[in-house]
Amino acid sequence: MHEFDLIQQYFTWTHAPSEVRVSVGDDAAVLQVSPDEELMISVDTLVNGVHFPLNTPAHAIAYKALAVNLSDLAAMGATPRWFTLALTLPAVDIAWLEEFARGLKELASQAGIFLIGGDTTRGPLSITIQVMGTSAKQQALLRKGAQVGDAIFVSGYLGDAAAGLAVAQQRLSLPTATADYCLQRLHYPSPRLALGQWLQGRAHSCMDISDGLVADLKHLLKRSQVGANIYHQNLPFSPALQKLNLSTALVLALTGGDDYELLFTAPESLLAEIETYQLVNQITITKIGEVTDKITELSLDYDLVNLPDGYNHFQ
Amino acid sequence: MHEFDLIQQYFTWTHAPSEVRVSVGDDAAVLQVSPDEELMISVDTLVNGVHFPLNTPAHAIAYKALAVNLSDLAAMGATPRWFTLALTLPAVDIAWLEEFARGLKELASQAGIFLIGGDTTRGPLSITIQVMGTSAKQQALLRKGAQVGDAIFVSGYLGDAAAGLAVAQQRLSLPTATADYCLQRLHYPSPRLALGQWLQGRAHSCMDISDGLVADLKHLLKRSQVGANIYHQNLPFSPALQKLNLSTALVLALTGGDDYELLFTAPESLLAEIETYQLVNQITITKIGEVTDKITELSLDYDLVNLPDGYNHFQ
Repeated sequence: MHEFDLIQQYFTWTHAPSEVRVSVGDDAAVLQVSPDEELMISVDTLVNGVHFPLNTPAHAIAYKALAVNLSDLAAMGATPRWFTLALTLPAVDIAWLEEFARGLKELASQAGIFLIGGDTTRGPLSITIQVMGTSAKQQALLRKGAQVGDAIFVSGYLGDAAAGLAVAQQRLSLPTATADYCLQRLHYPSPRLALGQWLQGRAHSCMDISDGLVADLKHLLKRSQVGANIYHQNLPFSPALQKLNLSTALVLALTGGDDYELLFTAPESLLAEIETYQLVNQITITKIGEVTDKITELSLDYDLVNLPDGYNHFQ
Repeated sequence: MHEFDLIQQYFTWTHAPSEVRVSVGDDAAVLQVSPDEELMISVDTLVNGVHFPLNTPAHAIAYKALAVNLSDLAAMGATPRWFTLALTLPAVDIAWLEEFARGLKELASQAGIFLIGGDTTRGPLSITIQVMGTSAKQQALLRKGAQVGDAIFVSGYLGDAAAGLAVAQQRLSLPTATADYCLQRLHYPSPRLALGQWLQGRAHSCMDISDGLVADLKHLLKRSQVGANIYHQNLPFSPALQKLNLSTALVLALTGGDDYELLFTAPESLLAEIETYQLVNQITITKIGEVTDKITELSLDYDLVNLPDGYNHFQ
């Protein structure tokens, strides 16, 4: 766990008002604001040089800042509605601002979310976006709810964005086309909003993968009080990652982060419906393991002892 | 107008969904989220060394970060309900975090607002808080609505926080007790929540004073399409500011900012009720001028041409 995750403990308040169904600790807070509807709220900050490489284009920064927040709404199965933007800039640069606004608007129109307010301040470049979405009541997908025997699924491919970051930081060398693809996945994540909405009433638990499969799955196991077996041969690799040696690809997929794919558990019986959903919606959904009764134990059938340079062991 | 206010134009989106009653440009956004209730949302970022002096105590930083946001809810007359915190820290410092959490909780319990989520990241110290409040529908106080002939009022005293900042930056020297009082007003603003709620249905327009009376009143005049006469002898000065020479006190009160008092317009006939409200609630409310038909013209009966060193002209 990151030291910065530990900080959350200072801001976990007890005695929540009755309308607060979920607060700190899931992908979004869930508020019962009207008799039929729930409001889901999530906030994420992106800091220059920490969450995106220095000199990332403004268009990509804006796109990603909104995308990672939308991904939290996707993980709840919420319909995106409104967002606010708090933008801290070192100086006023009109060309930069125009590109930033263009990136923001591009994804916002796609996702059907509307900017309702914000704040602009001077300081080191950082972007905080808060998204709000709604859903029919009691329908939010939570990290809690995984059941022993559930199949564990992920959407899309894992590790591509981590490979992109390694390329940007010159820790990994790839052929130009492959490098471009991985950088694209790093800068322009695809929030899985439609899939999240489809999973409401179908999945038992769900979250998005932002810190890497292993770190995030552990959060889900803890909230659900279950364990998991993961099979390394089932992990979905893009054609780009299939070209790397297996250990490198596995480290990227298991610990890399920035995927913004959905990780969910559901009864095995959902497999047939998922087959159809994949075909109709042109999205890869892969069964990577199953839920066990070994509480918070994550078992992987591959020994990652000998890691390539530049990566920390995930456990 | 600050160059950073101009940035807002890049993020003012047209074609708002029907439930968005007010978006960018007022103290908070107003959303019609249920048949009877409106949701008000506001976000503010505080950056180290920009919005508070370097080495401000963590308790004060947290208190102020929440207070300036609550002040926006006060300006709408909303009841505070929930907030999120996005905290960017250069490093993990447990003692600092404990003090920060204590300051946050202190004001949150006073104001009856609950922390529902957040994000903690590594980077230069900055705090973004988003507050949400509710109100009966169509009751939100807006900057728009001031009517020709309205009296213009402010709560509390003006200029104390600006004097505190000048003391902290060693631009102003004051006796210890006075300096302490001004620094207290700088670090611990008092969001006027009860007053804002009381003004619903009574005031024609309202906003909070964060950038200084002149700058903020101009926003109100623009949104309401009216003008204003302000009388310098009516401006409310604390005992601390009464000891300064008149020009200095006026500059602090007119242009200083960080007051977080309410500025509102109402019919002259409200004066009698305001007299009673002041006595019962131990708060100073002062009539400082009146609304005219000279659209966006702000007239002040004092010539501030010869400003003391260290201050910019307000015009």
